[in-house]
Amino acid sequence: MSATATPDVTRSLARFAVEAQPADIPANVRHEAKRALLNWLGCAIGGCRHPAVDTALAALAQFSGPAEASVLGRSERFDCLHAALLNGISSHVFDFDDTHHPTLIHPSGPVMAAALALAEKRPVTGEALIHAVVLGVDIECRIGRAVFPAHYQAGWHITGTAGVFGAAAAAGLLLRLSEQQMIWALGIAATQASGLREMFGTMCKSLHPGRAAQNGLAAAFLARAGFTSSERAIEAPAGFAHVLSGDRNLALAVDALGERFELMSNTYKPFACGLVVHPVIDGCLALRAEHGLQAAEIERIDLGVNPLVVELTGKPSPATGLEAKFSVYHSAAVAIVHGAAGEAQYVDAAVNDPAVMALRGKVRVEIVPDMAATQASIRITLRDGRVLERQVVDATGSLQNPMSDAQLAAKFSGLADGILSETATRRLIELCWSADRLADAGGIARASVPR
Amino acid sequence: MSATATPDVTRSLARFAVEAQPADIPANVRHEAKRALLNWLGCAIGGCRHPAVDTALAALAQFSGPAEASVLGRSERFDCLHAALLNGISSHVFDFDDTHHPTLIHPSGPVMAAALALAEKRPVTGEALIHAVVLGVDIECRIGRAVFPAHYQAGWHITGTAGVFGAAAAAGLLLRLSEQQMIWALGIAATQASGLREMFGTMCKSLHPGRAAQNGLAAAFLARAGFTSSERAIEAPAGFAHVLSGDRNLALAVDALGERFELMSNTYKPFACGLVVHPVIDGCLALRAEHGLQAAEIERIDLGVNPLVVELTGKPSPATGLEAKFSVYHSAAVAIVHGAAGEAQYVDAAVNDPAVMALRGKVRVEIVPDMAATQASIRITLRDGRVLERQVVDATGSLQNPMSDAQLAAKFSGLADGILSETATRRLIELCWSADRLADAGGIARASVPR
Repeated sequence: MSATATPDVTRSLARFAVEAQPADIPANVRHEAKRALLNWLGCAIGGCRHPAVDTALAALAQFSGPAEASVLGRSERFDCLHAALLNGISSHVFDFDDTHHPTLIHPSGPVMAAALALAEKRPVTGEALIHAVVLGVDIECRIGRAVFPAHYQAGWHITGTAGVFGAAAAAGLLLRLSEQQMIWALGIAATQASGLREMFGTMCKSLHPGRAAQNGLAAAFLARAGFTSSERAIEAPAGFAHVLSGDRNLALAVDALGERFELMSNTYKPFACGLVVHPVIDGCLALRAEHGLQAAEIERIDLGVNPLVVELTGKPSPATGLEAKFSVYHSAAVAIVHGAAGEAQYVDAAVNDPAVMALRGKVRVEIVPDMAATQASIRITLRDGRVLERQVVDATGSLQNPMSDAQLAAKFSGLADGILSETATRRLIELCWSADRLADAGGIARASVPR
Repeated sequence: MSATATPDVTRSLARFAVEAQPADIPANVRHEAKRALLNWLGCAIGGCRHPAVDTALAALAQFSGPAEASVLGRSERFDCLHAALLNGISSHVFDFDDTHHPTLIHPSGPVMAAALALAEKRPVTGEALIHAVVLGVDIECRIGRAVFPAHYQAGWHITGTAGVFGAAAAAGLLLRLSEQQMIWALGIAATQASGLREMFGTMCKSLHPGRAAQNGLAAAFLARAGFTSSERAIEAPAGFAHVLSGDRNLALAVDALGERFELMSNTYKPFACGLVVHPVIDGCLALRAEHGLQAAEIERIDLGVNPLVVELTGKPSPATGLEAKFSVYHSAAVAIVHGAAGEAQYVDAAVNDPAVMALRGKVRVEIVPDMAATQASIRITLRDGRVLERQVVDATGSLQNPMSDAQLAAKFSGLADGILSETATRRLIELCWSADRLADAGGIARASVPR
């Protein structure tokens, strides 16, 4: 292939997907898939009672076919297309899921919502599910890389537009599509790619991974039945990459196939708020743990931060939980007061907690122009005159300092709290860590539902 | 509003839709809606056994909810979202439906497939259905005008991308949405807008109006339940018109609301083939009727045509029915041999008919650079030396020379032939002409199904 030739992206990705064998996936990639599964499942369960999910369910339950797949965390069961939609929505409503670092795609939502719902309809092994997830995320993020950043900057919510390919690929693998059928599945996905960044801040933001999951899954079923599409849907002049992006690098979609796995560039949010605040929270939690800090002892908190922190999260007195997610002041305060920055620390009640409000008022923020986005400096002056300091170099959850398996399990427990019993939560964590050895992967979904 | 201000498109269209009263719609517009309904219904019934419909049905029937709406021309019944999808597909598979002249949108598919399926689920009067169709087409085509031609030239199949708005608006009216809900419905539609021209020539082309109908209908149900979206989904910098089009004229979406109705710029195809060939067919049919022409009498046929005719339909010896739709040679021949150019003249068997093949070989085509696309000259030399000539100025089916009501009814009968009985066909034509006086509009769908 010359440097200027258009690579045969659609066929290459389809062939790669259908030819790859589970044994070809390195052990660390398989393990990362289980980490992504645990993280995604917790977000879906935690978000399952969000008004966006309640509303979508109230509107669409009447159209469901057979009750063959679970709405995670809830008692309702729907046909697998509707289950994929609802689980895709719930997993993204807290904005607490995962992020593929090079593209800003939240990759698990579309892929896992489709694959897990399908696994309940047509039993597959855990090995097959993990294999489909690895390849689904790979194809989704490779297509994303080919169009990022121009595509994102143009206003596309890339989680929706690239997500539908990942869902189609993962579902297509579980349906054992041929290469020809997989080409059609990617084509049918391409011509349904949608989702506008204009929707950020509304329920439609989480509709995007939901619809991507549902439409990708439907694409795989259509392709299996012989529904035809263009065979150059991604790379053709009137195809996805040209029509939806002012610039593109198609070679990135197909380089080092089977060698580089995009799942290894995936990150998980340890805290339920904007990413740029994470280094500050990290440092506050560390100082609290190290010194047994109490909010009442504190005279003032001085933060040194990357300029984006002030631009994106500079609100000193947020009024709602949603605003608090974009307040570095609130985030530092809850980290000290509660020793946590999970979803519970960003509900409206937490914002109006007097102890948190008092501590917020003691936070001072200084921009440090050359500080990286994964860094922060924290300096806490106590009433007794002592000064505690911490430099955060690589925040927890960054690519350089990923959340540990134990931290992911703790995040999961926090999200499942109040929805599943402690026993059920522990069991589900175990199921995720052993996912690739399960005889029936659908058991993961069934175990995600309250008794 | 200053010349440079961005009009409040989303809210203006939503307000216009929910405030308009049936009595505000001029009688000629209401009549045009009935013509469009008859034309669309015939296409959907005629296409109902196409492989694209069979395949979609084979793949997706398993996911249907309650059997509440008809698949036109067939015995299956599905939930109204799936019925809208399938009827949207079948109505476009022959490429024989309608065309909104200023935008190239095929407007009825998305709007009518959504509205009619919904009318079976929730009974509405025929007046309400016609009202919803008029406004749905209006909003769809107004949004299309705002982004045409840049949007189309970029590679978007505008019937899909604009269609989802029309379906959402029509369904939203039948669901009696408030202005706020209608704004959300248009927003939820915007963020699902999709469909690539790369899919032309594959089954996905007709998937576009089908999905637009289904997704627009779902958007209306979601909005009614309170699912939120951006309130500036069409005009915002990260909204539909900016993200999906390199150029736009938002004022065109909202000018002369309630005065200019886009349905009055709608045209219907008299012949089941590429539009550019229509003037030639028109002239051949006229000469045949005038002179009782027989193919055996003919020595040669000389055509003078617009340059696009040769570029798009220059194939002298098509091998399949699909190719024949883009052959001016075949089209002229069937017009003379069969006195018709309907779907029956473009099946594979018709292409291999010896009489047609022989006459095809006698056709000569000359480009006339200054001839308009609606014009053609036909000169037929007979074996006995006589020369018959015809100049077509405005082809039948053009905006200047629309198909008559009787021609639309004849087209309908041709499409329904072999699917519905003659009695059922006559009854359905009557139902369409009296559509705005029906107590229960869903009766139209139920009468479109074979006994």
